[in-house]
Amino acid sequence: MSKTRFATVEAVREACRTLPDGDEHATEVVRARQRILTKPPGSLGRLEELAAWLACWQGREMPVLERVEVLIFAGNHGVVARGVSPYPPEVTTQMVANFTTGGAAINQLAKVAGAKLRVIPLSLETPTCDLVEAPAMEEAEFLAAIDTGFAAVAPGTDLLALGEMGIGNTTAAAAVAAALFGGGGQRWAGRGTGLDDVGLSRKQAVIDAALARHKDVLLDPLQVAMALGGRELAAIMGAVLAARLHRTPVLLDGFVSTAAAAPLARIAPRALDHARIAHCSAETGHRALATALGQQPLLDLGMRLGEASGAAVAIPVLHAAIACHAGMATFAAAGVRDRD
Amino acid sequence: MSKTRFATVEAVREACRTLPDGDEHATEVVRARQRILTKPPGSLGRLEELAAWLACWQGREMPVLERVEVLIFAGNHGVVARGVSPYPPEVTTQMVANFTTGGAAINQLAKVAGAKLRVIPLSLETPTCDLVEAPAMEEAEFLAAIDTGFAAVAPGTDLLALGEMGIGNTTAAAAVAAALFGGGGQRWAGRGTGLDDVGLSRKQAVIDAALARHKDVLLDPLQVAMALGGRELAAIMGAVLAARLHRTPVLLDGFVSTAAAAPLARIAPRALDHARIAHCSAETGHRALATALGQQPLLDLGMRLGEASGAAVAIPVLHAAIACHAGMATFAAAGVRDRD
Repeated sequence: MSKTRFATVEAVREACRTLPDGDEHATEVVRARQRILTKPPGSLGRLEELAAWLACWQGREMPVLERVEVLIFAGNHGVVARGVSPYPPEVTTQMVANFTTGGAAINQLAKVAGAKLRVIPLSLETPTCDLVEAPAMEEAEFLAAIDTGFAAVAPGTDLLALGEMGIGNTTAAAAVAAALFGGGGQRWAGRGTGLDDVGLSRKQAVIDAALARHKDVLLDPLQVAMALGGRELAAIMGAVLAARLHRTPVLLDGFVSTAAAAPLARIAPRALDHARIAHCSAETGHRALATALGQQPLLDLGMRLGEASGAAVAIPVLHAAIACHAGMATFAAAGVRDRD
Repeated sequence: MSKTRFATVEAVREACRTLPDGDEHATEVVRARQRILTKPPGSLGRLEELAAWLACWQGREMPVLERVEVLIFAGNHGVVARGVSPYPPEVTTQMVANFTTGGAAINQLAKVAGAKLRVIPLSLETPTCDLVEAPAMEEAEFLAAIDTGFAAVAPGTDLLALGEMGIGNTTAAAAVAAALFGGGGQRWAGRGTGLDDVGLSRKQAVIDAALARHKDVLLDPLQVAMALGGRELAAIMGAVLAARLHRTPVLLDGFVSTAAAAPLARIAPRALDHARIAHCSAETGHRALATALGQQPLLDLGMRLGEASGAAVAIPVLHAAIACHAGMATFAAAGVRDRD
């Protein structure tokens, strides 16, 4: 295996503790302009906040969204042998092919959003270990997956939307969320792609068994990601880290993507300040996970597909935010009387 | 005054009772296709419902959004003399000019949404009567305003987004909502463009006084719209009616637009089936109003600007819905295994 950016898990942890901040000056310039645009103060709600957030992380007083990229990481999971998904594991590879030929939801959504789409499969032929029996990944595998995600982020990207594909990965994500924020299978397991009641009980039990198996590492967020997560989750974590270093704002998709990034916030509370949760998944646990991270997702459209679909639907909201900010007239320029 | 489409208020009421239905066959065809597209059933959430809804009202098995129009109706209100807005009444005309020269939020948002924008001022030089003292409009004025809205809807429009501008009109809208759904100023009055606590109390008292003044007509939704509403609200009502007859789906913007259309639903419960509330305004009362109409707004971004801004931000969500519906591959075509 070639040299990875992070030689050890400790190096990842260290990176979380020295993350660059955003550009507070750009944020202030945006806020000052918002106050003189032809609208009552604050009346564009989150659009105003989003323009300031984009400015902060792009380091631009006038944020732009010219280079918007959607990245999907795909991985396979040994735990699917335990019947935690109604779909067979080969669907991961089949859906990667579907992304490549343009037939998936995300292909259409990325097009509507004016975003470029890239799909990055991670060793699909070698599923991670069954997390009830062993850590999902060895350290070298985990670091390699982080590295793949890190390297996938192109410098100069104005916005990055992150998503995933992986039959079985809501089980991994729920286990990670449980380890990081407490509670067990019942709190965090959802129906994923459509489990029935029996399947859901089985999934809850699998998560509880995995938490018991790895009880010695539950206080270490990176060991949690390694033991209970998956390659595509690790890659998302790597991409979130790279985006921070490149000062690229990030939209996280749904439950799995949020769980993938969450360990960073458990190491450094402000590690996800450059990321926004785009859509509140209908998958059980996502709202609680967002709340635990101090975020309110931008959209709530009852989606639960993954593959960055919720993030892609949110991209036009950001376009709306910056279009208002850049294009609106001031009270003075438009000859509109401000409030008395 | 030239002859209006509806010669009397009774004619409007009659029209509400003979509204055409949507195309249930098109809806069914959409639902059947959604079941074989490469995604777990229902996993696109409201995007699936929206594709079916567009199909239903467009009468097309494959809905399109080529001709999307945003209409803003503007009116002035005698009640502003009572200090119910922090902005002076001339701002209505000034903002209409701002729409015309492209400097308002909606100009930017319509562009992002790929929609055409039209602004229709209604006798701005003659504010409606102060609704605490008299009906806001005489019957002829009310019918003329409905007519303006009705005539503004171009046949062949694929989607209509409706909004308004009018200093003082959240007072009118709150009075209408109170009359239709019960409660008084305290339940329905919000801060509008930014009232302080004293202003808010004053606005609540104005609404209560208006409800007392017009207590004899509160059981008649159209008399309510005439006595407590405004010209731009009546025009929105007319546009909603015209859209129904043309089978054009409608996005309603915020609190005022919803209150404008609400009397139709009080006459005929299904009168707004072709309309969706696009965004839940931060203005007090909008969520309650949406709930009373049996709707959950598509977005909740804390906006409270009016001028169809919330509706415009929701347009890309509809583009996303139809893009997925039209562009996704089926399980069979993509060679993806469906669930076991």
